[in-house]
Amino acid sequence: MPNVTKLFMGQEPTKGCFIDGVDLIQQYKAIRFKTVDICEPLEIEDMVIQPVSYVSPPKWHLAHTTWFFVNFILHRYGVNFPWPDDSYPQLFNSYYKSQGKHWVQGRRGDLSRPTVNQIICFRRDVDEALVSWLLSFNGDVPFDVQNLLRLGLEHEQQHQELLLMDIKFILSRNPSKPAYLKTIQRADPQANKKPLKNSESDVWCNDGGLYEFGENLKDCRFCFDNETPRHNVYLNPYNIEHKTVSNEEYANFIADGAYEEPSLWLSEGWDFINENQIRSPLYWYSNQGAWLEYTLAGERELVLNAPVAHISYHEAYAYARWANKRLPTEFEWELYANHKPREGAKFELFQESNLAYAHYPEDQNHFTNVNGGLWEWTASTYSPYPGYTSTHDAFGEYNGKFMINQMVLRGGCFATPKGHYRTSYRNFYNATQRWPFTSIRLAGDSV
Amino acid sequence: MPNVTKLFMGQEPTKGCFIDGVDLIQQYKAIRFKTVDICEPLEIEDMVIQPVSYVSPPKWHLAHTTWFFVNFILHRYGVNFPWPDDSYPQLFNSYYKSQGKHWVQGRRGDLSRPTVNQIICFRRDVDEALVSWLLSFNGDVPFDVQNLLRLGLEHEQQHQELLLMDIKFILSRNPSKPAYLKTIQRADPQANKKPLKNSESDVWCNDGGLYEFGENLKDCRFCFDNETPRHNVYLNPYNIEHKTVSNEEYANFIADGAYEEPSLWLSEGWDFINENQIRSPLYWYSNQGAWLEYTLAGERELVLNAPVAHISYHEAYAYARWANKRLPTEFEWELYANHKPREGAKFELFQESNLAYAHYPEDQNHFTNVNGGLWEWTASTYSPYPGYTSTHDAFGEYNGKFMINQMVLRGGCFATPKGHYRTSYRNFYNATQRWPFTSIRLAGDSV
Amino acid sequence: MPNVTKLFMGQEPTKGCFIDGVDLIQQYKAIRFKTVDICEPLEIEDMVIQPVSYVSPPKWHLAHTTWFFVNFILHRYGVNFPWPDDSYPQLFNSYYKSQGKHWVQGRRGDLSRPTVNQIICFRRDVDEALVSWLLSFNGDVPFDVQNLLRLGLEHEQQHQELLLMDIKFILSRNPSKPAYLKTIQRADPQANKKPLKNSESDVWCNDGGLYEFGENLKDCRFCFDNETPRHNVYLNPYNIEHKTVSNEEYANFIADGAYEEPSLWLSEGWDFINENQIRSPLYWYSNQGAWLEYTLAGERELVLNAPVAHISYHEAYAYARWANKRLPTEFEWELYANHKPREGAKFELFQESNLAYAHYPEDQNHFTNVNGGLWEWTASTYSPYPGYTSTHDAFGEYNGKFMINQMVLRGGCFATPKGHYRTSYRNFYNATQRWPFTSIRLAGDSV
Amino acid sequence: MPNVTKLFMGQEPTKGCFIDGVDLIQQYKAIRFKTVDICEPLEIEDMVIQPVSYVSPPKWHLAHTTWFFVNFILHRYGVNFPWPDDSYPQLFNSYYKSQGKHWVQGRRGDLSRPTVNQIICFRRDVDEALVSWLLSFNGDVPFDVQNLLRLGLEHEQQHQELLLMDIKFILSRNPSKPAYLKTIQRADPQANKKPLKNSESDVWCNDGGLYEFGENLKDCRFCFDNETPRHNVYLNPYNIEHKTVSNEEYANFIADGAYEEPSLWLSEGWDFINENQIRSPLYWYSNQGAWLEYTLAGERELVLNAPVAHISYHEAYAYARWANKRLPTEFEWELYANHKPREGAKFELFQESNLAYAHYPEDQNHFTNVNGGLWEWTASTYSPYPGYTSTHDAFGEYNGKFMINQMVLRGGCFATPKGHYRTSYRNFYNATQRWPFTSIRLAGDSV
Repeated sequence: MPNVTKLFMGQEPTKGCFIDGVDLIQQYKAIRFKTVDICEPLEIEDMVIQPVSYVSPPKWHLAHTTWFFVNFILHRYGVNFPWPDDSYPQLFNSYYKSQGKHWVQGRRGDLSRPTVNQIICFRRDVDEALVSWLLSFNGDVPFDVQNLLRLGLEHEQQHQELLLMDIKFILSRNPSKPAYLKTIQRADPQANKKPLKNSESDVWCNDGGLYEFGENLKDCRFCFDNETPRHNVYLNPYNIEHKTVSNEEYANFIADGAYEEPSLWLSEGWDFINENQIRSPLYWYSNQGAWLEYTLAGERELVLNAPVAHISYHEAYAYARWANKRLPTEFEWELYANHKPREGAKFELFQESNLAYAHYPEDQNHFTNVNGGLWEWTASTYSPYPGYTSTHDAFGEYNGKFMINQMVLRGGCFATPKGHYRTSYRNFYNATQRWPFTSIRLAGDSV
Repeated sequence: MPNVTKLFMGQEPTKGCFIDGVDLIQQYKAIRFKTVDICEPLEIEDMVIQPVSYVSPPKWHLAHTTWFFVNFILHRYGVNFPWPDDSYPQLFNSYYKSQGKHWVQGRRGDLSRPTVNQIICFRRDVDEALVSWLLSFNGDVPFDVQNLLRLGLEHEQQHQELLLMDIKFILSRNPSKPAYLKTIQRADPQANKKPLKNSESDVWCNDGGLYEFGENLKDCRFCFDNETPRHNVYLNPYNIEHKTVSNEEYANFIADGAYEEPSLWLSEGWDFINENQIRSPLYWYSNQGAWLEYTLAGERELVLNAPVAHISYHEAYAYARWANKRLPTEFEWELYANHKPREGAKFELFQESNLAYAHYPEDQNHFTNVNGGLWEWTASTYSPYPGYTSTHDAFGEYNGKFMINQMVLRGGCFATPKGHYRTSYRNFYNATQRWPFTSIRLAGDSV
Repeated sequence: MPNVTKLFMGQEPTKGCFIDGVDLIQQYKAIRFKTVDICEPLEIEDMVIQPVSYVSPPKWHLAHTTWFFVNFILHRYGVNFPWPDDSYPQLFNSYYKSQGKHWVQGRRGDLSRPTVNQIICFRRDVDEALVSWLLSFNGDVPFDVQNLLRLGLEHEQQHQELLLMDIKFILSRNPSKPAYLKTIQRADPQANKKPLKNSESDVWCNDGGLYEFGENLKDCRFCFDNETPRHNVYLNPYNIEHKTVSNEEYANFIADGAYEEPSLWLSEGWDFINENQIRSPLYWYSNQGAWLEYTLAGERELVLNAPVAHISYHEAYAYARWANKRLPTEFEWELYANHKPREGAKFELFQESNLAYAHYPEDQNHFTNVNGGLWEWTASTYSPYPGYTSTHDAFGEYNGKFMINQMVLRGGCFATPKGHYRTSYRNFYNATQRWPFTSIRLAGDSV
Repeated sequence: MPNVTKLFMGQEPTKGCFIDGVDLIQQYKAIRFKTVDICEPLEIEDMVIQPVSYVSPPKWHLAHTTWFFVNFILHRYGVNFPWPDDSYPQLFNSYYKSQGKHWVQGRRGDLSRPTVNQIICFRRDVDEALVSWLLSFNGDVPFDVQNLLRLGLEHEQQHQELLLMDIKFILSRNPSKPAYLKTIQRADPQANKKPLKNSESDVWCNDGGLYEFGENLKDCRFCFDNETPRHNVYLNPYNIEHKTVSNEEYANFIADGAYEEPSLWLSEGWDFINENQIRSPLYWYSNQGAWLEYTLAGERELVLNAPVAHISYHEAYAYARWANKRLPTEFEWELYANHKPREGAKFELFQESNLAYAHYPEDQNHFTNVNGGLWEWTASTYSPYPGYTSTHDAFGEYNGKFMINQMVLRGGCFATPKGHYRTSYRNFYNATQRWPFTSIRLAGDSV
């Protein structure tokens, strides 16, 4: 039996029921539907190409997440489900060496086949086979199957966010700057002009001391192995800002010549921005002295009081250094996030302060579960927690093998599925990546 | 007025009538229709990607050939035709520096937009505007317009062949090896078993002397500037084989260890095959001791007596050296091709001897105009003929600026439009290209 | 005045006297002499080339360390010392953006001039000018000058170790495998056959808890800024081995197929070893089933019970995973190193257990100050300690700007100058580097 | 016996006597001495490095030319001469696949050993062994040995020119711009101010017709295989300038914006100059509006009426196009060179017209045999002459395997050994090379 219990921790599943008390099969169907639904505004052409190696064609995401269920559930439990073509196991394995050969990641865009239609059919057939098999348990799905199913759905939801990252990147390459979202309905059309609330400039202070971090199994419905074990960390006194850095503040940083001043940058960061001629966030375009920004709703004028987005760790680091501050560690962030300034609303904090409306339309039905704004770079490297070990099987390849040369991001973003919002969640990217939905929150040492 | 008369030579167009005596507008419609028709068996996904830099997405060909008519005819003559999007002039200019900026050739596959549908509409709108404008001349289209139109159509036909090259390459990358042609109807199902005719092993001998080459304006309906001027070349006595090299012969070359024997190869060729780990023609796959070949009809067993195809110049050179022969010069080839062994049938010679049925279905309606088999590498570099000069305008960019580090191919292939078959036609590729439909004809010195 | 006091911390220098109670000028002369002396066994040819970008020509080290004294002392204090050539400031600035342009690091080997002789003369002239200037203070050298001088000498000593790393790499590229050391005098010629002491397989255990790390200013004669501030770290219970991994153990790891087993490797590590075809430590060569090793004394049979050396972090990580252990964090290592199993001899521990005699001759006079064996990879990323900040001037470029994508090594090696041995010293390299003198010490979690 | 007679053609050697009537052994000693003498002004450091892959370290040339005599003469005839080290055969084989493995060309600069001294000793030992063996024939050296010896010496002389090309490149990389030649003694210090003679602007005209080219065996003392066979070529009427293009003319070409005007360039040339940011000849440096040039005598002001040098074929092509002329074919050049305007002085023509004094000191004793100026690019690709075949052994690797993607240069330069001056000599480089001593002569079509 697969060692999946090593990969995530959580309460014992209850009989036949699953994921926040919702019916197992309904949950499966809803999540699987949403993945396809995200692609609904796209043309077939948008779903095929791979303009840079780290961006995958949307059709590949649709197939890979489905491969996950076939490979790790149907075939492990001996359910008869023939691959539509002999090439599927190789084409749609992302990087699991233990699962056989896989197609080179950077060449996914070389493949015109299977077509989008064939992949949609593949999804439908797998969904039918899986649901039919689950129904055959008559409401008594074994716990290990429930666990694998949960993992598959968490995995699928991670790819839902990746899909939006990749879609934005793919569309942005077109000189015509097409919109993913047809219309933008803002709750407050004056939003980009209203002054920030006074309280938003405040900082939260902590006196330091010994704290426990990592997921607490007792409270946990689900978490990944990299969020565990719970362990002690000693913090020095520190302060952290309630508000993330705004576009206006970042534009000031640019105007101050920060991209030309080497003393602000890490050595690799300086080389990175110069070799790639980076002089602004990923989707900013200078237009006769004004800044335009490409968003999922198309190109438009920069919204000054929205949080800056799509900056690399290197840019976040340089900004903090320019502001005579620093980035918080992941533990400083987590402690802050757990502080719950208002009862029952710890994540709304981020939603409000991030003013994320500039980046997505709040009332589009695609994003009804949005409750946050943008991921936040931390000063922490993606390292194992004390006592963490990954297994030597496929599930050991899920998180552990990436624990090198990556920085931790915390929080979540508008594109992050609701269930993934937890203060212990550790997202990670290398210091040069700009296509995730990233932002900057500043911190400092208190005396 | 554009200097297009410098780019090609030919008889003065006759009033209102055009291209082999066929009505001008009918001709335009037929050629334009065929380009789209070539893409008919494709999925949209096949039309978008660019797996290597020298292969263009099929949808790009559809748009670029249309850009040609807008840019070089409609807009030059002041016909009002607004571009569907501001990006079109840049996106669909291939490499004409004189016509403004152009998108980097190797990044055409980064663009999902405009979509295939939008490009089809663009074609339709351009065709309507152009035909309507031509009709407004009431049967008296000026000669310079006729000339430009002819050039646009010749250009379009060149891209028809490129389309088939690129389609084959794109489809072949898919591990499922999809077929472009649904069924294969062979005139003679025993063809790949029948022995070669005795006469096919014969050579044609020539005693050498001073000959004229290049297009003869008096006989010429149309030719490109690079085929001119007509000029004298002195040839030594030589012989040339009636038959091109077969798959079986080429398999023997491989089996003899030729790809491991450096003395057979040019220095650059040896580096090329080793750096790219080339050990057989482009579309050959070894399968438990037998050779399979990817064709436009899908993967199948190698047809032994079909001509070898998709080899680079380097491989053709090494084969000839292995066989103690050499490749013919382009002039030796042209003299041979003009020899007309049978009256009125000089190109059937190639058709018969090439046994090209292995590579295309003779009676598919897509290829009713096929009258040859495969291009043939010559030993000649692509250099200007004595007295040739290219203009400094856009038409000077058509042929002249590529006259470096390229080898001449002669003949034509099954995918070459009928009107392009002439013994003076100079095709060219660099010595490493394998995706054109290429083959080998051997020659030797006579004492 | 330069902000050098930010770069390192230490006791206030005493009047006129300096560095472990030794006379300032004598100390300067001794260290400067040793750098040149390290190059004494070399041919001029060895001092010029740069076979890979991260290895510098030895003559460059000789010039760069001298540039440091001219740029940061002589010229800062207005001492008249003209550069021998206008190009010197640019050529011998390593990477200090604040100090003007610098020659590209990877192209140092393009320069045949200045010659070795010219650089030796440059050193001599600078030494004369500096000593003469120091003497002019009549025994009362200002503290800030003393501080800068100390920094220059610590810097010079860091380059002494780099010199030996680079020399070994450069010589090893020659197929003739020349020796840097003429003869090898071992204390015990049977050393590679004697069994390990029983005690060497023991581990040291710690129950965890809250500890202080980083340099303690009160005890500190000198340390770099990256070793500060002193701060609390909470450790879980752990154990750590007294002995580092031996060549024999590492050979078993190889023989077990570890380089072909992806589940042992980090994802980047797996790509690294495969793209570079790495299948053994840097200087190992397989010879008919036996292992040879290139050492500074030339090529010879692998000494089985010597510690394995010249492995990347990726290999150290995979080895630990294969052994069902892990690497220690830098704090676990430091606590262990401070444990002082025997009074006054905390570093001899490493010397003995490392059996480093295989890698250098103990009684060569070049290395009389050797008291350790090899650097040890830790599981810690090179991150700033809580409260650390680097300045925005040149000294802020010394350490802080490299705090990304690097792993910490602790200990010191036979080539490390004696004065650099302290348990708080943080060396760092990226996870793929193999040319430093690196080794593996294993640790584990205690229940 | 080696098939060396295939590689070059010439008169039967006379008994014991050799090369222009000079004693065999004296000739050998003189040529071998000169190679080392060329390196006399260098520092050891200059002889080791390889700043770009196509430039070899001077010490490598010294060793390779010696390897040639050991490998192709001493060892072929069974003379006992052990290699100084097992690595020599591999290290100093340039590219002869038939002679076993060879070190990668672009990594010759990775080798600090053998040292310059060791290589000088290797040369001395080989010279002693070879001369002693030749003496043992008592004045009756067999013809085949004479042939091989002659080939070795011609080869050595080709490397003498390469040495000067590489030395100039290596020294020029140093920002201090060191001089190879200590002083410059010009016959006429006013030379760069004197007006060109009227006759120098004249062109030579030819009415065209059928001519024979290639070396005529009857008149030939020695030639390479690539200069044969003699064969007929038909030429159109043409004209060719007596004078090559001057620095002043080339500076006008630059000032006219030619490097920014795509219509002047071949497509590959345009990409080449832009990717490498080329805006002037290789050794030109712009200094406040004036041009400086690096020469073997160091950096100095551009001599305006000296011929332009160190331009690529692409630049020569663009210049000719800008001037509404073209480059001559190699046959047009050869016919012109053979025309002998003054009796017995066909090459002085080039010497005078080239004004080559700007590039070398006429009366330096290193170059007493100088009788020409600079190589001249032709419009001809380096293709085999009709009937040419190269053998499959080592000598077939000498010339034939490079006959692809190279352009022919004709003439010779100041660094070309006297014996290599013949109007049939075919030098060749690819179109992007600028470090040979190249220049431009213009031609045109006559009506």
